[in-house]
Amino acid sequence: MVDTAPKPATTRTQRSDYTAHTGPIDVDAPPVTIDVAELGRRLLGTWADVRLASRELAKDPALHRLDDLKVAEHRERVRGQLRRLVESGTVKRAFPRSVGGDDDHGGNIAGFEELVTADPSLQIKGGVQWGLFGAAVLHLGTERHHQKYLPGIMSLEVPGAFAMTETGHGSDVASIATTATYDPEHHEFVINTPFRGAWKDYLGNAAQDGIACTLFAQLITGGVNHGVHCFYVPIRDAATGEFLPGVGGEDDGPKGGLNGVDNGRLHFDHVRIPRENLLNRYADVAEDGTYTSPISSPGRRFFTMLGTLVQGRVSLDGSSTLASAVGLTIAITYGNQRRQFTAGSDTDEEVLLDYQRHQRRLIPRLATTYAQYFAHERLLVKFDEVFSGRTATDDDRQDLETLAAALKPLSTWHALDTLQEAREACGGAGFLAENRITGLRADLDVYVTFEGDNNVLLQLVAKRLLTDYSKKFAKADAGALARYVVAQAADRAYHGSGLRRLAQTVADLGSTARSVGQLRDPQTQRELLTDRVETMIAEVATRLRNADRLSKQKAAELFNSQQNELIEAARAHGELLQWEAFTEALDAIQDAGTRQVLTWLRDLFGLGLIEKHLAWHIIHGRLSPQRAQAVTAYIDRLVARLRPHAQSLVDAFGFEQEHLRATIASGVEAERQNEAREYHRTLRASGEAPIDEKALRQSQPR
Amino acid sequence: MVDTAPKPATTRTQRSDYTAHTGPIDVDAPPVTIDVAELGRRLLGTWADVRLASRELAKDPALHRLDDLKVAEHRERVRGQLRRLVESGTVKRAFPRSVGGDDDHGGNIAGFEELVTADPSLQIKGGVQWGLFGAAVLHLGTERHHQKYLPGIMSLEVPGAFAMTETGHGSDVASIATTATYDPEHHEFVINTPFRGAWKDYLGNAAQDGIACTLFAQLITGGVNHGVHCFYVPIRDAATGEFLPGVGGEDDGPKGGLNGVDNGRLHFDHVRIPRENLLNRYADVAEDGTYTSPISSPGRRFFTMLGTLVQGRVSLDGSSTLASAVGLTIAITYGNQRRQFTAGSDTDEEVLLDYQRHQRRLIPRLATTYAQYFAHERLLVKFDEVFSGRTATDDDRQDLETLAAALKPLSTWHALDTLQEAREACGGAGFLAENRITGLRADLDVYVTFEGDNNVLLQLVAKRLLTDYSKKFAKADAGALARYVVAQAADRAYHGSGLRRLAQTVADLGSTARSVGQLRDPQTQRELLTDRVETMIAEVATRLRNADRLSKQKAAELFNSQQNELIEAARAHGELLQWEAFTEALDAIQDAGTRQVLTWLRDLFGLGLIEKHLAWHIIHGRLSPQRAQAVTAYIDRLVARLRPHAQSLVDAFGFEQEHLRATIASGVEAERQNEAREYHRTLRASGEAPIDEKALRQSQPR
Repeated sequence: MVDTAPKPATTRTQRSDYTAHTGPIDVDAPPVTIDVAELGRRLLGTWADVRLASRELAKDPALHRLDDLKVAEHRERVRGQLRRLVESGTVKRAFPRSVGGDDDHGGNIAGFEELVTADPSLQIKGGVQWGLFGAAVLHLGTERHHQKYLPGIMSLEVPGAFAMTETGHGSDVASIATTATYDPEHHEFVINTPFRGAWKDYLGNAAQDGIACTLFAQLITGGVNHGVHCFYVPIRDAATGEFLPGVGGEDDGPKGGLNGVDNGRLHFDHVRIPRENLLNRYADVAEDGTYTSPISSPGRRFFTMLGTLVQGRVSLDGSSTLASAVGLTIAITYGNQRRQFTAGSDTDEEVLLDYQRHQRRLIPRLATTYAQYFAHERLLVKFDEVFSGRTATDDDRQDLETLAAALKPLSTWHALDTLQEAREACGGAGFLAENRITGLRADLDVYVTFEGDNNVLLQLVAKRLLTDYSKKFAKADAGALARYVVAQAADRAYHGSGLRRLAQTVADLGSTARSVGQLRDPQTQRELLTDRVETMIAEVATRLRNADRLSKQKAAELFNSQQNELIEAARAHGELLQWEAFTEALDAIQDAGTRQVLTWLRDLFGLGLIEKHLAWHIIHGRLSPQRAQAVTAYIDRLVARLRPHAQSLVDAFGFEQEHLRATIASGVEAERQNEAREYHRTLRASGEAPIDEKALRQSQPR
Repeated sequence: MVDTAPKPATTRTQRSDYTAHTGPIDVDAPPVTIDVAELGRRLLGTWADVRLASRELAKDPALHRLDDLKVAEHRERVRGQLRRLVESGTVKRAFPRSVGGDDDHGGNIAGFEELVTADPSLQIKGGVQWGLFGAAVLHLGTERHHQKYLPGIMSLEVPGAFAMTETGHGSDVASIATTATYDPEHHEFVINTPFRGAWKDYLGNAAQDGIACTLFAQLITGGVNHGVHCFYVPIRDAATGEFLPGVGGEDDGPKGGLNGVDNGRLHFDHVRIPRENLLNRYADVAEDGTYTSPISSPGRRFFTMLGTLVQGRVSLDGSSTLASAVGLTIAITYGNQRRQFTAGSDTDEEVLLDYQRHQRRLIPRLATTYAQYFAHERLLVKFDEVFSGRTATDDDRQDLETLAAALKPLSTWHALDTLQEAREACGGAGFLAENRITGLRADLDVYVTFEGDNNVLLQLVAKRLLTDYSKKFAKADAGALARYVVAQAADRAYHGSGLRRLAQTVADLGSTARSVGQLRDPQTQRELLTDRVETMIAEVATRLRNADRLSKQKAAELFNSQQNELIEAARAHGELLQWEAFTEALDAIQDAGTRQVLTWLRDLFGLGLIEKHLAWHIIHGRLSPQRAQAVTAYIDRLVARLRPHAQSLVDAFGFEQEHLRATIASGVEAERQNEAREYHRTLRASGEAPIDEKALRQSQPR
């Protein structure tokens, strides 16, 4: 080989400059350590006690997922597990004191999330019973419904389904076709399924166990369709388990995961229910058929009703984050024990996590998981504030919904991505059910499309961002737009304030030759991330600015041409929220070593986001090509710097063997490695080791 | 909103310029159509007849995967399926005429690949029996082994395991610890497992069915270890199914998929086998213990032996591509029938595939799948040339192995990514087992880590690229490197020739203001893709250039610091090979409309690769930021242009309902949609439809 080459040499010089600016990292610095216990407490968050209690409960072997069950066996097992949850008393947390509950909304979700380590089927079936079926009665019904239905729901005497989705309508709930037509003569609603696409579908508890459901249908009275409302509808005879007259259904059969949940379909042939079965918190129908509602706008009424069900999204955000943490704990623990290939030595094989590629696969995902922990804590606190009624204005509710809609897609996708990478990082062992990861991934698969399809949720977020943008500039002139420095999205969500002089700084960053160390500055990261969200939204808004003047068809086409960009903007917004939460969490860390390591981890998260869209930042003049190159180089250094702390960072998640239940993360791999190394050492020392043919050939004359 | 904004306005202007350069696409052009039949024949490739016969076989319901089986039941079912394969006579294809086979290597793989639509467990268990266990006897044994063992292997009288991987060594086969020590007194090899990590693991047929295995062990004779060799070792009593004396094992238990295959562990306690059981094609041990081999270098001997087993990688490349095609056929068929949300109309809901995001999710993956079809055809032809002995020089073998190592990782990862996106694109329906995608994904999961872990394979490819690079410049001076215009990697693999004046053209592209239409020029795409591979390799080579002068430890650290970049370079190399295969395939398409659509699809594939690494191309001066922006805009246009052809493009894969077996892709969704639309139409016409409250409110005075 030769010594110099124009292009590569340039690269080297830049990297050296960069090194000179930031200084050597791993040399001469005092060793930094993490206070695992303190960090663990931080990660447990506001409802630490509830989480710890739930983790204790989750240790019970009777609650654990088994791997070789038929669907019927798994369902039966989960049925028993739900009864254990009732016995534990934990299911009453979310319910009102008037029926013996605790009125503890945040704690309820926190405890529920932790059950993902036991069996996601248990979690989701419990979620259906208490978080959807029960919550619909709680939030959409009134006191008479609470007293009448909640005790049986809490005790599992009345298992129920949450009958919203139809085969033909999932994301577009407003268009479901099941009707509830009021009959003033008999003071009854008539529930009817007009065609096959209007069958209720994918409902947990519908295939076998449910004897009632909270059913969503178009409420029609006096010839007027008032839109989607929720009704309490008995569906099966509790004694026989047979469908009641007029009710029918089907089993959804085996699924890609969550086979402990009996999902199924329901249809109704002019089934009559009493007028009082309308869950009438937000609307009522009088005996004579007169419709009344405290919310005059049908649209706002619909979203208010649906908004009460946001807790599903909140809890999936937390559960997915925990599942990612479990996967990373298994893969990183194994990667720190497993050895393969000799590299720098003739005899000792390298630990997997010492390979750069292995680090690159796992450590950035660890950074994202940490960001999600802190973002979820914010979301859960916000949820508790709204649902406890402490701060529950319309704006609060909307912010909560937007936050949940932004975070749930990111964390559920991240869980699938992380569990898959963790499984692959464990090789063939990762594919064995005994090592947990494949089962967890299979169960979490549907988290990305239920409780709001991820892409649809992100589009909702984007529309909110567009609305905020257009409100801000509705009456502004071109000059105002040119000086566009909107309040930071993240700041708005978390702090409710904080204009920054963004454009100027960003321009500065693009044109001056500041040191690369600036990338470490959180303000730089914030500005780059914030600017991207804002610019994307502004660009789309500009392209859509004439939509009002177009035909409905043309306007729809124009909007559709921006759909992908809008969804990407919403994703960037969600990532920014995670970054802000991570950054704010750093302040609360007392231990200096822990704070240092977490700051590197936050930098890795932030720069990883920037690297993912590096071309965007260059094209938009936010980073010069030279500066952009330093991003990747700095990420390489951060990953190497974090590598020694990887085990502490997963240990801080605090899972015990009863939660991990992965053979390869139990220490058995270290034992095997030690045994093998000891065997070879002894053999070499004995002088009886066979000579290697290669060595022999090298020592012979050729 | 306002009318102008500096940044967005700039963007718009550029996009308009771009439109002006390339001209409007969808207006005034005659409609382009695909000749689905012709395209289907192209996709079937060289062994079309074998593929069609295998697809007929795969229609047999007895061969289909069922979804709710216990592991034991699934294994039993697959056992029966293997017997049906024997009855069909197809398993003899790969075996020599001397034992009643067809000596048809390419055809054998083609037929085998198609079985993925029936049950991947059947495919993999068959692959273990005939493609690994049988192939080891065939390729590593000699005539006496063929006559003695192959008939029983072909007839399934002797089910067997391929005992290479150990718990402690998977990717690093050379370091397995099982020993086969020659005892000259008894003319026997003594097979021994020295410690737990040396247990054979993850072996199909080992948990239950195997009565023999081809075992890989360190061959030791006369105190010298000659490295890994393969032995034929009986392990169970055929009559009782009990382990033979000294042999033990364990069941690997349930897995994340492929549960019809009985994977397990084996260990050996000084088990004696006759000297003749050494599969002695590449090395032999005489009665007195003298070791001989026609290949003097132990390293070359090892790789020659392993190289005979490349067919596993070849067949996974094809099978994964077929699985991706199945997933896309299901999702695109459903996406063309399913409707959700009204956008441009008050009554008609939009078909999912008309949403830009939905197109962006599925159509680029369709382009990649097409690229893989054509690349795989090349790989399979090359494989057949080498294994038939027609062109089987050392270089041919090495090229085949590098090609397989480059393509298998890409196509197996693509299958997981595509099946996941297809499943999500079908929403909740995609999660039901009856719609096939989750089961297929679960089974294919392990394809990314077995038969060579994808990351390890890509590193092998990268090392080959580095070696080629350093050979070329070993004696060159700095000037030669500065003028570095290496033969194109793809050209080398496919054509064996073809220097291009790359550097100049690329520089030109970066600095001049050519029209954006140039992006459509295949030469531009080729140059950008090729240049990236070459530059990445050159940069790494430059960084590694002083490694020889370092200590082993320091050299290893230096190499490790480049590992991620190297693996990415290998991936880029594999993608380039796919792009070249796609491009070459265009020439063979007769029908002009088909060629036009496939050219768009190839452009989408090529520009998608460029977009994925857009920052790289900008940073390295290959694309100006302005030009780079046009890449994404052009991709948007290509996706929209291809959308009307999506159904034809999946129809051309030629799967019938017996292969898809997905309820949602059977036409049932179109029926449901038609029924619903007809219901609403009739209701509106009847004048009895309830009035919408919203409409009512708008018509009332406020």
